[in-house]
Amino acid sequence: MGKGTLYIVSAPSGAGKSSLIAEMLEHNPAYAMKVSVSHTTRGMRPGEQDGVHYHFVQKEHFEALIEKGEFLEYAEVFGNYYGTSRVWIEETLNKGIDVFLDIDWQGARQIREQMPKAKSVFILPPSNGELERRLNARGQDSEAVIAKRMAEAKSEISHYHEYDYIIINDDFDTALTDFRAIIRAERLKQDKQAEKYKGMLKALLAE
Amino acid sequence: MGKGTLYIVSAPSGAGKSSLIAEMLEHNPAYAMKVSVSHTTRGMRPGEQDGVHYHFVQKEHFEALIEKGEFLEYAEVFGNYYGTSRVWIEETLNKGIDVFLDIDWQGARQIREQMPKAKSVFILPPSNGELERRLNARGQDSEAVIAKRMAEAKSEISHYHEYDYIIINDDFDTALTDFRAIIRAERLKQDKQAEKYKGMLKALLAE
Repeated sequence: MGKGTLYIVSAPSGAGKSSLIAEMLEHNPAYAMKVSVSHTTRGMRPGEQDGVHYHFVQKEHFEALIEKGEFLEYAEVFGNYYGTSRVWIEETLNKGIDVFLDIDWQGARQIREQMPKAKSVFILPPSNGELERRLNARGQDSEAVIAKRMAEAKSEISHYHEYDYIIINDDFDTALTDFRAIIRAERLKQDKQAEKYKGMLKALLAE
Repeated sequence: MGKGTLYIVSAPSGAGKSSLIAEMLEHNPAYAMKVSVSHTTRGMRPGEQDGVHYHFVQKEHFEALIEKGEFLEYAEVFGNYYGTSRVWIEETLNKGIDVFLDIDWQGARQIREQMPKAKSVFILPPSNGELERRLNARGQDSEAVIAKRMAEAKSEISHYHEYDYIIINDDFDTALTDFRAIIRAERLKQDKQAEKYKGMLKALLAE
């Protein structure tokens, strides 16, 4: 059995990244794929579940994991740690399962260094007007927060060229079909297929 | 507008390469794609059309084109020349049209050297038994010719690892979906998208 592929997925807030990943995982029974769940030391919020939204851990535990080199990347934000566990990702990939990692451009850079075979996908909104419309439609954020997100979006988008693939999320279904094509095509790469069809190739080439 | 991609497609005789390419071109109105038509000095056979199956040219003309460096690759087989024109391919790619090049592993090597951005796809039959069954089902060849094709198939297949992608043509529709996914994913590569959406990116990043 071949190894899975690690997909680094980045996008500005409001581009539709979470919905695309969720839809992909829900309706792709033919492919084995999972989303990486980050570790954090921040408190659990209402509606969040341990092991689903985050692995919620104590600061001492997190720092011990850092010491052991168990994070592919981690960052401290407002006094809380957030990190991506190396062990779970490597075990999952070794089972032939593709892993999605929802992360910003800074985390993406750290991951690429440690996992050079990872493929990265950047999701873009079709325009700033549409991005702002989507952020407003969520009804979650105040005007000031949305202005802040729009500024952050520009900074995130400026790193689009560091990614292997770019998906424009104008029409959701088109973007989803794009995402699926990337995953299907990556599974057709020579090294993946040679590993998956080792026995068949041996038989084809037998004297 | 972005440039098209050159696809080198190889397979042993009977793997279904021509049917896959033909089906792709006939039912993919969303993508601009064409098949490269080779030049040859051999005589036209019944049912063949100039400019469709080959560009049929005189030996002197072919040799003049060699002199001018107008072939990406060429070969002499039983006293006849066969070659791939550089000019038409480059012009077509520059129009944003993908080009398919149906060629064996030796031609593929020459093309890769000259067109390093080309993507190569190898199509495999699921087994030697199935390959032989398909060659027999065509009803075109004698037993001796089929035995020769089976030996050639093994030699061609032994170069599978030189290709970017491998498609197993067991079920035709699955193989076709694979082929389409590769083409769709290649169009989503960062450099292609950045070129295609240059204006959009500029607007997204404008102050």
